[in-house]
Amino acid sequence: MANLNQQWRLIARPTDEAGREHFRITEEPIPEPGPGEVLVRNIYLFVPPSMRLWMNEKDSYFPAQVLGEVMMGITLGVVEKSNVPGLEPGTYVNGMGGWQQWSVAPGAALQPLAPHPGVPLELYRTVLDVQGLTAFVGVMDVCKPQPGETVVVTAAAGSVGSLACQLAKTTGARVIGVAGGPEKCRWLVEECGVDGAIDYRAGDVGKRLDELAPKGIDSVFENVGGPVMDLILDRINDRARIALCGLVSSYNTGGTQSTMSLMQLVNRAAVMQGFLCKDYLHRYGDMLATMQPMVLAGTLKYHVDILEGGLESTLEAMHRISTGANQGPQLVKLGPV
Amino acid sequence: MANLNQQWRLIARPTDEAGREHFRITEEPIPEPGPGEVLVRNIYLFVPPSMRLWMNEKDSYFPAQVLGEVMMGITLGVVEKSNVPGLEPGTYVNGMGGWQQWSVAPGAALQPLAPHPGVPLELYRTVLDVQGLTAFVGVMDVCKPQPGETVVVTAAAGSVGSLACQLAKTTGARVIGVAGGPEKCRWLVEECGVDGAIDYRAGDVGKRLDELAPKGIDSVFENVGGPVMDLILDRINDRARIALCGLVSSYNTGGTQSTMSLMQLVNRAAVMQGFLCKDYLHRYGDMLATMQPMVLAGTLKYHVDILEGGLESTLEAMHRISTGANQGPQLVKLGPV
Repeated sequence: MANLNQQWRLIARPTDEAGREHFRITEEPIPEPGPGEVLVRNIYLFVPPSMRLWMNEKDSYFPAQVLGEVMMGITLGVVEKSNVPGLEPGTYVNGMGGWQQWSVAPGAALQPLAPHPGVPLELYRTVLDVQGLTAFVGVMDVCKPQPGETVVVTAAAGSVGSLACQLAKTTGARVIGVAGGPEKCRWLVEECGVDGAIDYRAGDVGKRLDELAPKGIDSVFENVGGPVMDLILDRINDRARIALCGLVSSYNTGGTQSTMSLMQLVNRAAVMQGFLCKDYLHRYGDMLATMQPMVLAGTLKYHVDILEGGLESTLEAMHRISTGANQGPQLVKLGPV
Repeated sequence: MANLNQQWRLIARPTDEAGREHFRITEEPIPEPGPGEVLVRNIYLFVPPSMRLWMNEKDSYFPAQVLGEVMMGITLGVVEKSNVPGLEPGTYVNGMGGWQQWSVAPGAALQPLAPHPGVPLELYRTVLDVQGLTAFVGVMDVCKPQPGETVVVTAAAGSVGSLACQLAKTTGARVIGVAGGPEKCRWLVEECGVDGAIDYRAGDVGKRLDELAPKGIDSVFENVGGPVMDLILDRINDRARIALCGLVSSYNTGGTQSTMSLMQLVNRAAVMQGFLCKDYLHRYGDMLATMQPMVLAGTLKYHVDILEGGLESTLEAMHRISTGANQGPQLVKLGPV
């Protein structure tokens, strides 16, 4: 087993949650890197909420997963063998290593990391990676909050949302977070410093929005969609900006999403903007320069949720994400650091 | 009667189409203008598709119509008495004169017109007014078509859509219009010069979009919403721009609007932007400078649909709009030019 590479291959497309029956586990010899390639031992597999969409027949922001192939996955690993100058063994790298223990990739497909002393390694695949960049550009480049404006963040205690809340606070805006359950709401108010939190499970979200945003809503960092988004859209101000980060309420049903309040975009001359990290890679340095000092100073609050059980834990990780049981971005640990 | 001002007052909010039973007709003496005011004899009442929304309890882009008051209306008239220097009797003016034959307004609430010889007067309340400005800014400032890109316009034979098609063609883009019925489609292709027209009543809109937009859709001038919008969104390219002008398919049911394809905004990093003419009044001169020469040269194709029957025709006008029976922007003629 130690000399084999365990892989999970998608063999059937789930219609609801992904389950063991949708995969075939294979074990192959650890591959050898060819010219221009490196062998990476995968350490962390990142499980984003949108991973479920990759399994659908319809393309998402990635091309649809090919059946029979190793399931796509966002990984952090360490170079073990290298045919690429500059990617020496021992270098930590981000890549698309898939649901497997080892992967071979061309050097150009990997992003070498320079972990800062005192910053936990896992942050470079979460808070200081896609999570941070998504929150940073969604807030700074799409929502563009002005001092005194009101920003609403949904899935506010989530992996991206909690960072978006804290980044929005740095702009002088009033920040309201919507999250599921009193514990998450308490954390948002007491730890993350939002001005108000709404437990969407606790009842009248519309009334709470009216209380916490009496002057209306100027921008929205939207992760969820569904009925709560409609209540938010009903309260936007003229020229509101809605950063459409994701619509997690729909991911188990094929990624379709309904809204009843679209007319508000016309009535309020508002903008709803989808955005993808891949269009903002030029902002990675700005994000790191803003957020890494906040991590080192201890002022940025975050959770990283690591399941230790190896590839076998990945379905559990997806279930935690879809039920909101995770606290912060969800990683599966595939091997030692 | 000649010395009375007939007025239509909304007394009940329609739940479906507006009908005679929702109004009370009153007749009052023709009002006298006070200091700083003028008396206007209304000549044309413009009936936009969104007028139905003004009658709802919920605010639209206008505050909700107050029950018992004269119904709001967009008018073109002529000054008959004036206490405002510069607005001499005989001056044609645009204003919000309401569903009535005469109105008094402060000078600042009126826009004096300078009709060009050879341009029909009614165009200054339609093609060269809100219709033209909406089409102009929706195409030029929101869709921003590049040469060779594909633009889809819905309600393409309509009052705004047909102008949007022709303005988009001037940018060098490929333009596809969606309209209801073979006659409108023929007019779009043969007269307005679009590259393809789709009759949404004739069947498989998705297949027709695939045929006419084989490289995908780069921008959308959206007037309708509903299932056709979903089919369009399913085919947008990365960074597509959707100019959300209106969602006419929803106006008789309270202005709510559903879409199932919102996730495409995330997948394609696309922008959906509501826009209102009132935010673009600074573009009125640019619009006029572009479109009035096209009218004078006879190169701009348009219909203006004028009902001659006075205020009594307004409900018929609204019905024509909601069923798509109108050809071009709908006016009701209230009196002689």
